[in-house]
Amino acid sequence: MNAPQKPTTSVRRAPATAVESLIADCLAAAGAPRDDAETVAALMTEADLTGADAHGVFRLPQYARRLKAGGFNRTPKIRVERTAPATALVDGDNGMGHLVVKRAAATAIELARETGVAWVGVRGSNHAGSAGLYAEMPVAHGMVGLYSAVASANHMAVWGGNELLLGTNPLAVAVPTGAGPMVLDMATTVVSYGTIKKHTLQGLPMPEGWLIDRETGEPITDPAQSGRGLLLPIGGYKGSGLALMLGALAGVLNGAAFGRDCVDFNADDTSVTNTGQFVVAIDVARFVGLDRFVAEVDRHVADLRATGRMQGVETIRLPGDRRRECRAEREASGIPLPEALIVQLDKVAAEFSVPPVFSR
Amino acid sequence: MNAPQKPTTSVRRAPATAVESLIADCLAAAGAPRDDAETVAALMTEADLTGADAHGVFRLPQYARRLKAGGFNRTPKIRVERTAPATALVDGDNGMGHLVVKRAAATAIELARETGVAWVGVRGSNHAGSAGLYAEMPVAHGMVGLYSAVASANHMAVWGGNELLLGTNPLAVAVPTGAGPMVLDMATTVVSYGTIKKHTLQGLPMPEGWLIDRETGEPITDPAQSGRGLLLPIGGYKGSGLALMLGALAGVLNGAAFGRDCVDFNADDTSVTNTGQFVVAIDVARFVGLDRFVAEVDRHVADLRATGRMQGVETIRLPGDRRRECRAEREASGIPLPEALIVQLDKVAAEFSVPPVFSR
Repeated sequence: MNAPQKPTTSVRRAPATAVESLIADCLAAAGAPRDDAETVAALMTEADLTGADAHGVFRLPQYARRLKAGGFNRTPKIRVERTAPATALVDGDNGMGHLVVKRAAATAIELARETGVAWVGVRGSNHAGSAGLYAEMPVAHGMVGLYSAVASANHMAVWGGNELLLGTNPLAVAVPTGAGPMVLDMATTVVSYGTIKKHTLQGLPMPEGWLIDRETGEPITDPAQSGRGLLLPIGGYKGSGLALMLGALAGVLNGAAFGRDCVDFNADDTSVTNTGQFVVAIDVARFVGLDRFVAEVDRHVADLRATGRMQGVETIRLPGDRRRECRAEREASGIPLPEALIVQLDKVAAEFSVPPVFSR
Repeated sequence: MNAPQKPTTSVRRAPATAVESLIADCLAAAGAPRDDAETVAALMTEADLTGADAHGVFRLPQYARRLKAGGFNRTPKIRVERTAPATALVDGDNGMGHLVVKRAAATAIELARETGVAWVGVRGSNHAGSAGLYAEMPVAHGMVGLYSAVASANHMAVWGGNELLLGTNPLAVAVPTGAGPMVLDMATTVVSYGTIKKHTLQGLPMPEGWLIDRETGEPITDPAQSGRGLLLPIGGYKGSGLALMLGALAGVLNGAAFGRDCVDFNADDTSVTNTGQFVVAIDVARFVGLDRFVAEVDRHVADLRATGRMQGVETIRLPGDRRRECRAEREASGIPLPEALIVQLDKVAAEFSVPPVFSR
């Protein structure tokens, strides 16, 4: 049920404002324009607040390193070409992915207002963090949002293969409900690589079924061995096929990298990744109407929550529940930072001569 | 790897033309206009040819029964309302699903030619058979196709629940390649209910991981016990969440049935199902261009086929491979019909005083 992890290492909590200002200061010090640094910091902090820990401040050291190394274009000229009434292609000019995809989502919303649906493809982008963030953007405008991406490193083989040729290519879908956006944000693998990284950082053992050894096919449960592993797709060949198709749509269709052309963004700070993504916005008003849609989704959600349950199941959890609960809890109590991460963040802060997260 | 089943019962092969004319004659005799009967027969036969056995002539007895019982509107007035430049809502007027969704796909293709992408929702429809058929339709026009549906009976619980409140809500994606359409057609459950029905009909035992007992949560492997079962979603809570989201998009967004409102189409021949589906067409020319897309997909596909393989894996199978192979083999050698199905088909043919499949 994807219950929150019980970390074995100690954790301290920092207010979201401290996390956000640390990120903004470091990215700006690493060469990003202040506005852009703040845009990215807000999205990364939102990822932390909503429990997408692998896409929050956890990524700051890597992003700062890549900015410094010139792997990101610090001052990208993001170009939006409207290629048809309901489609656009966004060229990110190798800017930070958050900037590029936020622009794509804004474009999709704008076009869909006119045409009912809009499909906006992205190339020349980079790792954009939490998929749910972008799927959620159209919801505030009475729209359904879809988002997918070619993952920024290959951690999966095609079904039956043993080479890292596919990514965890996520799919996110968000719909409006009376309780706010209901957001499904899923990797096409049983777990995301971010979850593996989190386990590695915190030294948490992994259950069987997440990762297998490339050579032997045996399960890997020791996070220290994750480098030898292949992530397993959901539903076997189905998840592998879905990752391939999402890669074709988010990558190939937009002239972005896929398969063997993907740069391992975690291992390489300088090469242009040419990351591809897409955002789709669907205006609910052009279908059943927003009020009716929300009322009906709410009715069905209530029904699903009230269902009879399997023995031992206390509550039914629906897409976005953990997200919503995390957000409320972390806004009140702060974002939990494991000690190992705090050490890294303090190092980055020192490097850029900005105050560390716990002095903010 | 979803290898073709080795049936334990004997099987005879009928030419596709014989299967198609049997279906058309029976549906017409059961009250469908001849044109409509032929349209549905062509799509059902295509399902058989491409290996979607649970959606081919296997469904004839049920469809004929429902036509006779008045559960389908035999002469539907299918209405297409263009609700925005790139969206339409199709009301199927309770016609056979094949007719309604084929119309929706044609609409999506027509609109997308103008607007780059089109999203066409469907309500008032019925079971439309093989998802891949509809996703594939835009491909002949240089487009990518997406299709989903609210399944015509609930065979899954929400993750943690034990009531049949969700369907296997399939997702199909088709893209053009040099070797023809590459089609992913997947249920959000580990197997489709059609596969369960096929096992029931042929008395084939089922592996663990497909179905669990609603009361005990124990695996069901005896096909005779499938009525007590819940289909398991792919990736646990992920597949459950995906089925919910696809249901919201294919059902709720279009004013069609979802959740507790779904009529079990397999058990009930008369109630209006108000089935919902959607078809999306994306014009490749508005993105990277068709020639380049096909060349790049072909390059990546070749790369994936040539990958290093896990021990014991002879060939890498990609979405649509089985479909393509089945089609070639069955066009040449005929559609395999298990004896139990032949008995049913002969009964239907006799009922409508039309020649049986093996006298055509």
